[in-house]
Amino acid sequence: MKKIRGIKLDPPKILVLGFSSVILLGSILLMLPVATVDGNGLRGIDALFTATSATCVTGLVVVDTGSTFTTFGEIVILTLIQVGGLGFMSFATLVAFILGKKISLKERLILQESLNHLTVEGIVRMVRRILIFTALIETTGAVLLSYRFSFDMPLGKAIYNGFFHSISNFNNAGFDLMGDFRSLTGYVDDPIVSLTVSGLIFLGGIGFIVMNELYEYRTTRKLSLHSKLVLSVTGCLITIGTVMIFFLEYHNPKTLEPLSMTGKVLGSLYQAITPRTAGSNTLNIADLTQSTLLLTIILMFIGASPGSTGGGIKTSTFAVLLGAVKAQIKGKEDVAFFGRRVLPQTIYKSLTVTLSAIFLVLAVTMLLTITEPGKDFLAILFESTSAFATVGLSMGITPDLSTAGKILITFTMFAGRVGPLTVAFAVTLRRQQDPYRYPAGKIMIG
Amino acid sequence: MKKIRGIKLDPPKILVLGFSSVILLGSILLMLPVATVDGNGLRGIDALFTATSATCVTGLVVVDTGSTFTTFGEIVILTLIQVGGLGFMSFATLVAFILGKKISLKERLILQESLNHLTVEGIVRMVRRILIFTALIETTGAVLLSYRFSFDMPLGKAIYNGFFHSISNFNNAGFDLMGDFRSLTGYVDDPIVSLTVSGLIFLGGIGFIVMNELYEYRTTRKLSLHSKLVLSVTGCLITIGTVMIFFLEYHNPKTLEPLSMTGKVLGSLYQAITPRTAGSNTLNIADLTQSTLLLTIILMFIGASPGSTGGGIKTSTFAVLLGAVKAQIKGKEDVAFFGRRVLPQTIYKSLTVTLSAIFLVLAVTMLLTITEPGKDFLAILFESTSAFATVGLSMGITPDLSTAGKILITFTMFAGRVGPLTVAFAVTLRRQQDPYRYPAGKIMIG
Ligand SMILES: [K+]
Ligand SMILES: [K+]
Repeated sequence: MKKIRGIKLDPPKILVLGFSSVILLGSILLMLPVATVDGNGLRGIDALFTATSATCVTGLVVVDTGSTFTTFGEIVILTLIQVGGLGFMSFATLVAFILGKKISLKERLILQESLNHLTVEGIVRMVRRILIFTALIETTGAVLLSYRFSFDMPLGKAIYNGFFHSISNFNNAGFDLMGDFRSLTGYVDDPIVSLTVSGLIFLGGIGFIVMNELYEYRTTRKLSLHSKLVLSVTGCLITIGTVMIFFLEYHNPKTLEPLSMTGKVLGSLYQAITPRTAGSNTLNIADLTQSTLLLTIILMFIGASPGSTGGGIKTSTFAVLLGAVKAQIKGKEDVAFFGRRVLPQTIYKSLTVTLSAIFLVLAVTMLLTITEPGKDFLAILFESTSAFATVGLSMGITPDLSTAGKILITFTMFAGRVGPLTVAFAVTLRRQQDPYRYPAGKIMIG
Repeated sequence: MKKIRGIKLDPPKILVLGFSSVILLGSILLMLPVATVDGNGLRGIDALFTATSATCVTGLVVVDTGSTFTTFGEIVILTLIQVGGLGFMSFATLVAFILGKKISLKERLILQESLNHLTVEGIVRMVRRILIFTALIETTGAVLLSYRFSFDMPLGKAIYNGFFHSISNFNNAGFDLMGDFRSLTGYVDDPIVSLTVSGLIFLGGIGFIVMNELYEYRTTRKLSLHSKLVLSVTGCLITIGTVMIFFLEYHNPKTLEPLSMTGKVLGSLYQAITPRTAGSNTLNIADLTQSTLLLTIILMFIGASPGSTGGGIKTSTFAVLLGAVKAQIKGKEDVAFFGRRVLPQTIYKSLTVTLSAIFLVLAVTMLLTITEPGKDFLAILFESTSAFATVGLSMGITPDLSTAGKILITFTMFAGRVGPLTVAFAVTLRRQQDPYRYPAGKIMIG
């Protein structure tokens, strides 16, 4: 553990306590009569579910946001999203600084590119920059969306909606005010809404460090290995996803078929971007083919990039594992990207994060098949992956979940939010080698 | 590559060519008019499917074995099973010897327990012992089964059935002659059939090296790390599987509920053992709860042990990955079992085998959702996992597969049979370190 001016930092604990407090406060606020249109406030379990979903920027909803909540309730949700998203992004970036510094102390020479000035002033500067970026991007998004919405609704409402959906999507939160669980399906072939929101999701999902490097690129003219990897993997996933969804849904009369070519392309692009892990949608999820649903599950599981508002095992984790497999099969000793070697420690970390995630998703899926006996297996697998990766897409079973199911998904959203970072942290700060080692033994594999 | 008396050994190529030839020959034989009861011979695609399923000891069937084939056809299938099962077990054990020797040359001191006398005489001795074990175990199983079957059918038929089912199950092949795709469901609460077949599956699935060490245990009084690991993981999987299936199916009126307590226990035990990867069943798969089906998919994916007739990623691979995650989270430098350290190379090998397998299963599942549009997702996922792990259990969609689907499953059975060993082999015989190394770069994970 590291100390900063005498305060002992135990990031996972701070993260869990911080998020729990915000969720608890949010739940109480959403239970107030003033929070809901019917004047009763939300039921306890639904309030806990909604507050967790908002704070963990997931977007799974048991009640329709647009029609259930008063403006007060909506502001509570929006605040939880902003606090949860920003808080997590800052926190994860900070943790990366700490871990980066720790490594650079041990391996100073090879890590000169690292982010290694962790001082209180450094932290303040970083958080300030995160705030500025966020404000700038969210406002730009809000202006574009408000402009477009102003054709469909009164100006005041358009501005309110513009800000809500800009903030919700930059934070990869997936909440919407469109009513009737519709999300953004009304704007599937609208370039302004569709591309603005795609941009917000993309920026929110690549993480602060990458955003910052992109911003400074004009002067520095260089990107770190991390940024190169995140950008290229994200680019690949979006491209492959768009092309696959385009062809898989092209003849689906419930999704792309009735749309113009522009609509088909925009719809495919949006559905390829939203699993990274925004959770808003322009095509109705339950209408997608099983092939697209499986693809979406895989994309959601991979998720966004580290130090972002998004979830999942992360693009970089996925890339490291792919790289490790490729190197092994090709008989290379080292895993390398862009002329840089990946440390074995990073590979082990990726392995641990990914296997823990697979275990969690499978365990939750199995428990849900018990608590929700009549429901379609694919819908359940989709739901638990969406909850783990804090995506918020759903085939529509969320509102019908049993109380046990709601508790399970609440837990999964929370674990999905704090889990990967906690596991990565624990793995990085592992103890030194044991004083004695066992002799090596041999095991057959494959 | 190693040379033995001047012959260049490239095991993956030998394996692929050998299996392909046997499958091709088997397909031709099954297309002969004399092979089927209707006197037409099997259709080309169905013959290829059946021959692949038999040779790869999978057990997925597009036609019912018992009612479609003449005795000639059945003998062809049984021969393919015996050649495929025995051939693979011998071959995989041989490869383990080669790899074991390669390692022991490099790390002679730490690998004194290894199987390191690879000479032509050594190979002959090993293959002879495999043959003796097989003959002994299969005959014992056949006698027990024939005795039981003799109460239900004429003695001659009982003996024929006894041998067929003993050989099929020891080779983890999953074929049966019961008719109507029934497998062994008629014997769910029969201790003799149920326990005999369970025993055959267990022995066939732990692999020759473990069987051999168990056999020699009376004199040596010691087991290798590999055997300890395989036996304990297999034991855990069977125990956990039995208990979970017992509770998940207890109130299912289509499976366990109508049975006596003995039947419930035997049924649960059998369904926990058959995913390792026999493929015969005493409960009807399509009637199981979704929870049990997901559990079965996971158990099938893990599969049997290396150097056995079974498939899957293998129990030892699974254990190594679990051990790696546990060590990482606990902050240990080394992964260790039973006071023996696992080499990093073994962990990388496990990672590569497992990720390749996940990729294959997901890709095949996605392709099947395209070629079989109307079918239930869970049934498709179950089918592709079963084909990959050469299990042969099915929720019943095999006979209704489209031609494209049958080709896909045929390919998957073949890849599932030769794939893990090929990948493990490629990874072990990797080249030396590159002459120059890239500098290390840093990547955020989680
Ligand atoms: K989300
Ligand atoms: K089998």
